[in-house]
Parts: sequence; C-alpha cells; structure tokens
Amino acid sequence: MRELYELCGASPEVVFSPYCWRVRLALAHKGLDFASRPLRFADKEPLAFSGQQLVPVLRDGETTVHDSLAIFRHLDEHYPEHSLLGGVPGESRLRLIDQYVALDLRPALFRLLVLRILECIDPADRDYFRQSREKALGMSLEAFADRDAGQAQLARALQPLSALLAGQPWLDGAAPGGADYLVGGFFFWAWCLGEQLWPEDSPVGAWFHRLLAFCEERQGPVQRAANS
Amino acid sequence: MRELYELCGASPEVVFSPYCWRVRLALAHKGLDFASRPLRFADKEPLAFSGQQLVPVLRDGETTVHDSLAIFRHLDEHYPEHSLLGGVPGESRLRLIDQYVALDLRPALFRLLVLRILECIDPADRDYFRQSREKALGMSLEAFADRDAGQAQLARALQPLSALLAGQPWLDGAAPGGADYLVGGFFFWAWCLGEQLWPEDSPVGAWFHRLLAFCEERQGPVQRAANS
Repeated sequence: MRELYELCGASPEVVFSPYCWRVRLALAHKGLDFASRPLRFADKEPLAFSGQQLVPVLRDGETTVHDSLAIFRHLDEHYPEHSLLGGVPGESRLRLIDQYVALDLRPALFRLLVLRILECIDPADRDYFRQSREKALGMSLEAFADRDAGQAQLARALQPLSALLAGQPWLDGAAPGGADYLVGGFFFWAWCLGEQLWPEDSPVGAWFHRLLAFCEERQGPVQRAANS
Repeated sequence: MRELYELCGASPEVVFSPYCWRVRLALAHKGLDFASRPLRFADKEPLAFSGQQLVPVLRDGETTVHDSLAIFRHLDEHYPEHSLLGGVPGESRLRLIDQYVALDLRPALFRLLVLRILECIDPADRDYFRQSREKALGMSLEAFADRDAGQAQLARALQPLSALLAGQPWLDGAAPGGADYLVGGFFFWAWCLGEQLWPEDSPVGAWFHRLLAFCEERQGPVQRAANS
C-alpha cells in the first residue's frame, strides 16, 4: 500500500503543491501507483505519524518519508530501475539546480500565483494562509502580487530552461528524469491553479506539454481548479 | 603530446579565461599533463588549425577539440576513469547549471573584472577588447563597471552555490567533479586577475581554496597578475 499525502484546494481533487507534484511525477516515472491523501493547509493532524507537518509525505509499506528529494532517494533505493537522482554527481547537480529554482523560479511563480492560491484554497484555510505569508513577505498579498514584476521575474527564470530545451526535449536529455520532475513540479503548480504563465509556442511550453502528456498517460487526467 | 591553447594577458604566464580554466581543472582531475600555448586576444592565426577562433582549444595527439564542455566529453571518451560529465543525466544537468552560470555568475564577475582585464591584457589588445565589448554592451566599459551593481549581482549569484556548499565540500558532492570545474573556472578568472571578490570565510571562499589547492598540487603554482 502506497499513500501520498499532498496539498489540495477547496476541492480535494485539485492538488497543487509544487513539491507534491515532484513526487507524483517521480511515481509516474517509476510506474508506481499510489492512493492520494489530499489535505488542506490546516489539516496537520493526519501528518502526525510522519513526525513533522509538511507535505509531501509518502507512506510506502512500513516506510514513511517526507521532503521531495528524500522521497526521490527512497524511490531510487527501493525501485532502482530508471534512476531519478542519477548517481553521485547527478544527485548533487540536482540539488544545485534546486537552489536555482528556489532563488529564481519559485519566487517568480509565487508572486504571480499568490492571489489565485488564496481563491482556490478552502475558505477555512484563507486566514492562516494570508497571515503566515504576509508575515514572511512583510507586506499584504495584494501589494506583493505585482503582475508586471512577477512577469519580469518569470521571464528571467525561464531563460536557462529555454536555452537548454531549445536543443533537447527534456531537461535530463533524451528522456525525462529527475531534473524534469524537480523543475516541472512548479509548472504543475501554476497549471493546476488554472494558470498558464509561459508562452505555449516556446521550448518551455512544448516541454511542459510533453511532461503533462507523460503524466496523464500514466496517472490519468490532471485536475485543474475551475475559473472563478 | 597534449597542448592547451589558452588566453593570456600581457604576461604569457598569466592565463585567465574562465573557459580555459575549466579545461585546466579537468586535466588536473584526469591527472593528464599538457603544454600551455598562451595566446593574446589578437593572436587568431595560431588557432587556424582548429577551424574556429576561440580558446580553449585542446590538441590531444591527432585530435583537436574546442569548447570547454566538448573538451570534457573528449576527455571522458578517451580517459574514462573519473568521469567529468557523470553519465547521461549528469551531462544534461551540467549544461543546465552552465545556463545559470551564463545568466548570473558570468555577468556579475564580468562587470567587476572588466577594467582589470583591460589593465592586464597586452597593450596591443586593448583597442580590440574595448571596441568589441563596448559594442556588445552598448556603453563604455567605465560606465558598465559599476562596482555596487556588480557586487549586488555577485551576492545574488553566489547564493545557490553557498546554500549547497554549506552542507558538502564540493559542488559534485564528496569529491570534486565536472560541476566544480564548470563553475570554478569563473573563480580562477577573478583570482588570476589578482582579485578576490567573495568572502574568504564563507562556504564559497573555503570551496575555492580547496579547488585552488587541488589544482596547485597537481599542476604547480597558479600565476596571478601583479597589482598595478
């Protein structure tokens, strides 16, 4: 029995955390099925068994693992075929790419998505979400959600991805791999919230659609939040 | 017979191109010796045999290779022990990291180093250097060389490296590898021009000194430009 605890919006079918999407894509890569356990922001109690409060948490038989890259490692150790991490330098390079994602891509998308997240989450989660994020940002969500600034940040964050994807179909080369899921999780975040923030007819747009098709072929249709 | 054609300043002993340093470090990694063929910016004729005009060029027996990552691949193919690229996802991830370096680290360091490069190169190269770079930048070198802007850019570019190196000695993990040389070449660029632009007592500063010690142990003292 394999269970993935992940973050959902008001509708339990719409899961949108970028870190949870990394794990969904990694499970698709390994050809492993799982039962989704969607949680709302305030649902901390069901995670108590994991000894911490953040999703994604994977319960795989007797083993419980949290943190997306720790879950990649768990999957490689228990299901070694089709490595996600790609050996010793592969894992370290993935961690460096993750640092660039945290500096560039995540903040750009968060700025563009923050008000949409507020809309899509359960009404009971909204005060918690607003207060915790406004405290971290030092400003109101509305002031932070500057569309022009977000689009400029995103254009910059897409540059390295576009440059690589102009010459090859996947970030990991000829076939999708750990780097595609590590970065791609952030694109599913936007997509599941009903947004598409990157140009469709671009190397990045084409790559995202390949990744979406890869995922839907293995796990069925991806549920998106309805437009308000 | 192995020859490395690389870029030098007014003194042929000071070689400072970041892309050439990548190759020097890769040769150190493989334990291969080589004869340096230092060229000034205007010396294009000695490269004619390579069919193009840019350093680094490696002549390795009958084979001629240019472009630092193509040289990494050549070295892995001909001297497979201690892989630089690290297999299929490893090479692709290195190319993605290279895109981030091109977007963040290279422009930050170039802004901080440009006037120092002008000082260190052969006087006969200075007009060529100034004209070609000012045309590309759309402004004078002096206007471009804004110290505060460069330091702010560099602080940002160092963040992902610092975050990773806070937890491990090398970018590639427990031992130095392709990612260390790919990124490290840019630190040797500054170092050989007589600059140290990053905090010594930081994860990045400690990493650079490990890389310098690794290189000097295998290839002898690194020559730096004298202060003017």
